[in-house]
Amino acid sequence: MIRVIFLGTSASIPTKNRALPSIMILRNGEQLIFDCGEGVQRQMLIAGVGLRKNLRIFISHMHADHVLGLAGILMSLSLTGRQDPLEVYGPSKLSSFIELVKELFNFTPSFDIIIHKVSDGVVYRGRGFKIVAFKVKHMEESYGYALVEDLRPGKFDPRKAEKLGVPKGPLWKALQEGKPVKIDGREVKPEDVMGPPRRGLKIVYSGDTALMQEMIEISRDADLLIHEATFDDTLQEMAVNELHTTASQAATIAREAGVKKLVLTHISPRYEDPTILLTQAKKIFDNTIIAEDLMNIELAWSD
Amino acid sequence: MIRVIFLGTSASIPTKNRALPSIMILRNGEQLIFDCGEGVQRQMLIAGVGLRKNLRIFISHMHADHVLGLAGILMSLSLTGRQDPLEVYGPSKLSSFIELVKELFNFTPSFDIIIHKVSDGVVYRGRGFKIVAFKVKHMEESYGYALVEDLRPGKFDPRKAEKLGVPKGPLWKALQEGKPVKIDGREVKPEDVMGPPRRGLKIVYSGDTALMQEMIEISRDADLLIHEATFDDTLQEMAVNELHTTASQAATIAREAGVKKLVLTHISPRYEDPTILLTQAKKIFDNTIIAEDLMNIELAWSD
Repeated sequence: MIRVIFLGTSASIPTKNRALPSIMILRNGEQLIFDCGEGVQRQMLIAGVGLRKNLRIFISHMHADHVLGLAGILMSLSLTGRQDPLEVYGPSKLSSFIELVKELFNFTPSFDIIIHKVSDGVVYRGRGFKIVAFKVKHMEESYGYALVEDLRPGKFDPRKAEKLGVPKGPLWKALQEGKPVKIDGREVKPEDVMGPPRRGLKIVYSGDTALMQEMIEISRDADLLIHEATFDDTLQEMAVNELHTTASQAATIAREAGVKKLVLTHISPRYEDPTILLTQAKKIFDNTIIAEDLMNIELAWSD
Repeated sequence: MIRVIFLGTSASIPTKNRALPSIMILRNGEQLIFDCGEGVQRQMLIAGVGLRKNLRIFISHMHADHVLGLAGILMSLSLTGRQDPLEVYGPSKLSSFIELVKELFNFTPSFDIIIHKVSDGVVYRGRGFKIVAFKVKHMEESYGYALVEDLRPGKFDPRKAEKLGVPKGPLWKALQEGKPVKIDGREVKPEDVMGPPRRGLKIVYSGDTALMQEMIEISRDADLLIHEATFDDTLQEMAVNELHTTASQAATIAREAGVKKLVLTHISPRYEDPTILLTQAKKIFDNTIIAEDLMNIELAWSD
């Protein structure tokens, strides 16, 4: 089961109801934070999910509204005496940001900060999943991230096992774990009793980006596509100029990629009521929602 | 009339209910912000008081929890196209902070930022008041600030004016404005018909500081003393070591200085319920309250 918590859903400037961008993903004891807008540590407290030992932070790009809150997180972790190293991932300027914060505030963290400069491809392998970074079209060195679960073993078919004379018990377990077993000198292979490997969950976060066709392949069959939709369609020119996406553009990506669910986020503060974005997007891709601060989405395997 | 809005009242780390330190004072069209903890711009939006043209920002010291939010304010002001110069006041490192923010985020504000390095004494003269900085005992270059209104003219005594033969009308007004008038070749001076000058309001904000006896003179007869009280009395040793003040120490300052009202702020996140601080302080100085986020206090002349 994966839990996605939207900690901040505004663009550039916060509003009364929306903090600056940040998304937390919790999966099997791992805590992954994507972007850290100003105020994110307080949003976590309000959401009732504190910082954990097994935390990793991924920054999409070095615009202040996506990264300023990292300074507060680092200092609070240090004030509360964290010892475990913290791994952070992002564009090359992320390390200057962290160095300057240390220098300026004469800040010596209680823990090591391991900074990974990301580029296209797998940037982290967790237990049963990987995080893949992909370049997007915004400022220099802007990335999106995808969480892709590993393939899971296929479904075990007890009738096939019985037919092949494998008795219920430890031998079934061995087959389910992918090990061949011997019955009266005869070998039964896992593939004889298991269906094809099953895909895991896939979540894609666009970061900030102009419309890009590559996003269709990147998002192919995702269970959840979290795409920026800073502007509604009437401001498409502004979206092009400022390298952002409109609601309909994001919905078109979702439809073409065949994703299960689309969440629009990074909502311009001009939309006190974001219904216009939702209406435009739903015309193209019905299973769309607008992210709200502190919204939770839970994803589970369907088979 | 002066309105004081507490935008953030926590110390070092925010809590669910308390943002990081910031206090806004509104007086006669001027907006003064003292300290800018992370998240302050959103606290303002929640308080329903946006940034105004006539804004000045005063930073007490360069600990991150008091200044990080300034970066967000500067960027939001620029994104919304501010043209008027912005004057900010604080320790010498404030200018490096602003320079680094500009550099790191490739940020060219739409307005000039005028940085005033403060030292003991008057740092700003507004219309009818001044802001006085005073050194406190915390990190290098830590300051508190006092807002001190100018003396107001004394009370006009209509009976005295009548006795001296000054007819009601423009001549009364002239005397009230401090100008002498002539009646039948005889001069009547303002002081003949006016009481002694009346004091204006006085608000003192301690910033972060260890107990300091000088605070008594600084706070003498203040209408409002906003004093940090990071710790309760049982943690007095910690207060001494970390250069902070306890509830009873702050209350003793308030009592000795003869202030009208004491507000304790900069509450350590360990106090989910700050009643212990209030109880300890009230034993020494009864008119004490604990600052809460978004609390408003209005001060008006009593005569």
